[in-house]
Amino acid sequence: MRLPEMTRATVPLTQEVQAIDEKGRRSLIHIPAERPLTVYVDKRELVTLMTLGGAPEALVLGYLRNQRLVRSLEEVAAIHVDWSVGAAAVRTRGGVADIEERTARKVVTTGCGQGSVFGSLMEEVDDIVLPPEARLRQSGVYRIVDTIRTLQSIYKQAGSVHGCALFTREGELLYFVEDVGRHNAVDAIAGKMWLDGVQGGDKVFYTTGRLTSEMVIKGAQMSIPFLLSRSGTTQMGHSVATRLGMTLLARCTGRHFLLLTSPERLILEPVSTLGSDPKVDTGWAGSADGVA
Amino acid sequence: MRLPEMTRATVPLTQEVQAIDEKGRRSLIHIPAERPLTVYVDKRELVTLMTLGGAPEALVLGYLRNQRLVRSLEEVAAIHVDWSVGAAAVRTRGGVADIEERTARKVVTTGCGQGSVFGSLMEEVDDIVLPPEARLRQSGVYRIVDTIRTLQSIYKQAGSVHGCALFTREGELLYFVEDVGRHNAVDAIAGKMWLDGVQGGDKVFYTTGRLTSEMVIKGAQMSIPFLLSRSGTTQMGHSVATRLGMTLLARCTGRHFLLLTSPERLILEPVSTLGSDPKVDTGWAGSADGVA
Repeated sequence: MRLPEMTRATVPLTQEVQAIDEKGRRSLIHIPAERPLTVYVDKRELVTLMTLGGAPEALVLGYLRNQRLVRSLEEVAAIHVDWSVGAAAVRTRGGVADIEERTARKVVTTGCGQGSVFGSLMEEVDDIVLPPEARLRQSGVYRIVDTIRTLQSIYKQAGSVHGCALFTREGELLYFVEDVGRHNAVDAIAGKMWLDGVQGGDKVFYTTGRLTSEMVIKGAQMSIPFLLSRSGTTQMGHSVATRLGMTLLARCTGRHFLLLTSPERLILEPVSTLGSDPKVDTGWAGSADGVA
Repeated sequence: MRLPEMTRATVPLTQEVQAIDEKGRRSLIHIPAERPLTVYVDKRELVTLMTLGGAPEALVLGYLRNQRLVRSLEEVAAIHVDWSVGAAAVRTRGGVADIEERTARKVVTTGCGQGSVFGSLMEEVDDIVLPPEARLRQSGVYRIVDTIRTLQSIYKQAGSVHGCALFTREGELLYFVEDVGRHNAVDAIAGKMWLDGVQGGDKVFYTTGRLTSEMVIKGAQMSIPFLLSRSGTTQMGHSVATRLGMTLLARCTGRHFLLLTSPERLILEPVSTLGSDPKVDTGWAGSADGVA
């Protein structure tokens, strides 16, 4: 397998700004970066992503993958990110067929972050088969939630970013990506999975954001049967997951969760065997975005 | 002024689904609707918005306004929403000039919801002048926060939606819109403002979501000098607001806030004169989307 030739572009992820509180007190706070990254495919401008900038090459690759603009890693010869001009230049080996037509239909989605799903991804969903035998134990859910809670993160420093993570069913963390747009975070993980040859069928996806239709579709595109969120879901996220036989767990925090779809995939265990609820969640739970 | 002829399409905004918690207990919970609404302008397909569906006509109108596809309400002859086919048919009086060209450039933004800003809105920002004399009192901020806290909402029933609101500087609520995509909520308010001839220059905009670049730009397009959020901001939201002389207040909850930009617009008052902190916020503050 030839891997794409890629830069490893870096850029500051937070900035200090001055704030004045309700008592007139001044302080310096950190806020996350948000910057445009314009993607060019074979010199043709494709899209501008607004991103934190933590994993730009993986983001671009995962975006192309999840938009189904490239079908295999082999098709991508190079991804060069240059932050001085806010550009990602993608070179393919054989061009992207029908790129004009395939990027013409625009769906502006619910998600934070990457709002556009090109083409007719919804129609593809029915072709996706998730591994029917995949199971997740309740203790695995708790290990994932505990790991997320204790991670070092941009969020803890600056707030205002979403986090996504890929775990094994045993609760081992494989990838963790934060971004100002949560769909960017998903796409970056999809890109990393491709680069490392990681399959999704026996993995668990965690997101701090809501389980909307687009999140469910992106999870399905990566063949991941389990989606966990500390937030809630929407009707369409719920119905697409039901159609796919994907297991959604919402409101995952501490020892609590709500299992919403395909309950047969989750192995409930006696709570007494699972350890006590950790202290108040000092990580992501301190948030108040208004959407849960 | 001729108002557009419009439907008043309604559709259920929540759905009951079954959930199983960590102890195996079953319950019914409410989740918000999320449905596609495909917008046709003079029979040409423009975009598909994923929306809750609470204010579809205002959403479509505000979308056209904030994307600068129509410049005045007079240009819009009719907006017909038909939920049975998920379509909004817009008829204009004179057509939309250069619609092909103006919808060709795609920026996938940070926001929840409507992710795409067509064209070169960023370049327009420098032409926007917010009223330099507009001021907001600290007591007005608290009235706004208290009003939001006590509103009946889809959020309280079902979670997983964003709320946006327009207030007078005295704290009077003019509009409140919820949507699964927060940019839809902003656009719907922009549509309502147009229909009612409401100007933004002496108003305050409140959002449960983050103050990203796109939120700041949309606020500026409506000429609103004050943006309040219970969440945080991003570097680009902050820098665009600074350039515009727009006042951002982040982390507005209870009696707390962080004033981030154009501090001269806010009149701080002795906290002792402002009443005590209300009890724990039982409304939006109970959330945990992971992004604040």
